[in-house]
Amino acid sequence: MTTMNRRIVLTSRPTGAASEDNFRLESVPVPEPADGQVLVRHHYLSLDPYMRGRMSDRKSYAVPQPLGEVMIGGTAGEVIASRHAGFAVGDKVVSMGGWQEYSVADGAAGALAPRKVDVSRIALSAYLGIVGMPGVTAWYGLNSICEPKSGETLTVSAATGAVGSVVGQLAKAKGCRVVGIAGGKEKCDFAVKELGFDACVDYKAAPDARALGALLAAATPSGIDCYFENVGGAVLDAVLARMNAFGRIAVCGMISGYDGEPLPLAYPALILTSRLKVQGFIVSEHPKVWPQALAELGAGVATKTLKYRESVAEGIASAPQAFLGLLKGRNVGKQLVKLA
Amino acid sequence: MTTMNRRIVLTSRPTGAASEDNFRLESVPVPEPADGQVLVRHHYLSLDPYMRGRMSDRKSYAVPQPLGEVMIGGTAGEVIASRHAGFAVGDKVVSMGGWQEYSVADGAAGALAPRKVDVSRIALSAYLGIVGMPGVTAWYGLNSICEPKSGETLTVSAATGAVGSVVGQLAKAKGCRVVGIAGGKEKCDFAVKELGFDACVDYKAAPDARALGALLAAATPSGIDCYFENVGGAVLDAVLARMNAFGRIAVCGMISGYDGEPLPLAYPALILTSRLKVQGFIVSEHPKVWPQALAELGAGVATKTLKYRESVAEGIASAPQAFLGLLKGRNVGKQLVKLA
Repeated sequence: MTTMNRRIVLTSRPTGAASEDNFRLESVPVPEPADGQVLVRHHYLSLDPYMRGRMSDRKSYAVPQPLGEVMIGGTAGEVIASRHAGFAVGDKVVSMGGWQEYSVADGAAGALAPRKVDVSRIALSAYLGIVGMPGVTAWYGLNSICEPKSGETLTVSAATGAVGSVVGQLAKAKGCRVVGIAGGKEKCDFAVKELGFDACVDYKAAPDARALGALLAAATPSGIDCYFENVGGAVLDAVLARMNAFGRIAVCGMISGYDGEPLPLAYPALILTSRLKVQGFIVSEHPKVWPQALAELGAGVATKTLKYRESVAEGIASAPQAFLGLLKGRNVGKQLVKLA
Repeated sequence: MTTMNRRIVLTSRPTGAASEDNFRLESVPVPEPADGQVLVRHHYLSLDPYMRGRMSDRKSYAVPQPLGEVMIGGTAGEVIASRHAGFAVGDKVVSMGGWQEYSVADGAAGALAPRKVDVSRIALSAYLGIVGMPGVTAWYGLNSICEPKSGETLTVSAATGAVGSVVGQLAKAKGCRVVGIAGGKEKCDFAVKELGFDACVDYKAAPDARALGALLAAATPSGIDCYFENVGGAVLDAVLARMNAFGRIAVCGMISGYDGEPLPLAYPALILTSRLKVQGFIVSEHPKVWPQALAELGAGVATKTLKYRESVAEGIASAPQAFLGLLKGRNVGKQLVKLA
């Protein structure tokens, strides 16, 4: 009997909000590794906001996800067959395996090859989150763009997400006052009580822009020096108005605008009057920082000085719904799909 | 008979557009210099967009101009009485003398003291423009924020103004393709034929945003790597859409929004997708660069490798109208008022 590989392909591009109709679950035989390849059984699939951009074909930094092909995505799993001398059956690896249960990968593909990871002190799933791309994203934006100094106030939106939760903890370790922005009391409690943030603004508790500004002002009595931006829209407007002179904004994501009409920025003149630096970045374009960032993040997790949480969906069939939930902020911490 | 000093005071703050009604011309006796002071007769008054910000009392980087007092402003003139050993009658100086015909100044006021200038190879008026604050503004934004490389495309708005005309010439000297944006055929002809820009987009020839985008695209076939922003609004939207990956935007001014409602930015997500750096600055906060910048700009003017033009109004009474014209883009090059 042939073992089957269940996978999710993109069948259509969203017009407006993404929906489950854009995806199809299909089942194909598990591929055979060719010479130089390994076969990986995925234990976890990573779901990340950038995937929403790949579903569209509007101009962006990456080529669109082709229709009819397996959705792109990071995976963590185990080598179950190897035809490459550098990998043995049983090796734990992370790779870009996609939204499926199995994948083959070239062992010699350089940056695209599977990367072996040590699960003796760090859980396999963490390599898709805090000790993976989201963690390095936090590390890069914070250290290379925000450059916070001790005593400054740093604000981060999507504060309990895979990236935001790391940003805030790293900034706390640098001596900053850290103020999160998140949706709902549960998330804000988690940010303050578990992650150690100084304060957290629940934007859903603000009925309008004025109320959001008042909540933010109360939480940032000395203004904001650094902002790590994950959401855009009304939250960005509110933060901009609180920025101190010479503030730095790292633009990592603008998830609130991914699903529909572009969201304008109300007061761009504040960039001038507050002499701000606003800089967008994509972590994959900065490979030089990865080794240092991963070493620091891994050490923090191994010694439990850095905390993380995961939202885990079960089974590949649940990936589309879990992904749509991520876009709506239904997750706390890293959104994963458990596959084995 | 007492010599009189005619001066312009701010009498009210604009609600909406600034108007002549916000100003009053008055006449007072010329002040006597005290010990350590000099009396300067102003030959030229500098009119600059930043003054519009001082007329309002909304939050900005500078304290508002007090009502009932002489409008702030840079001046170039001649010492006609000195009670400071460092200055002699006849010395040509630049100082912050304000919108008036005479001023007294402390000779020992550090950065606020009058600065003696050499008019043997550079005209006195140029020290208020290309060899003064506007020139250093261009130099700083270009060299410290835009950092253009040879072969890159640089775009500058308000391209024929006191700042923009210098930005473009300095960028040409660095080997850039320089594309100006200005209002009207006369200005664009000046930018290309006199200043040596590669192209100039007349935004007034574009009936709508789509047409402006098409004109800009035609003038920037390889996209835009650096943008020196003086105007904001629809021009900024059009430029953002043409920015190449890793582009740099120096935000020097947003004059199109100074007179009324704040102008939103339509597509802030482009900062992320194009990985842009957008940075605001105020040249007076970067005193370290002034000596080098002024030396380079002065050498360029003295050797005629840098060109400039002036729009000159006559007499202090014409200052308000000339200033309002500046805000509407009626000037070409540096807007001055000739006082003596």
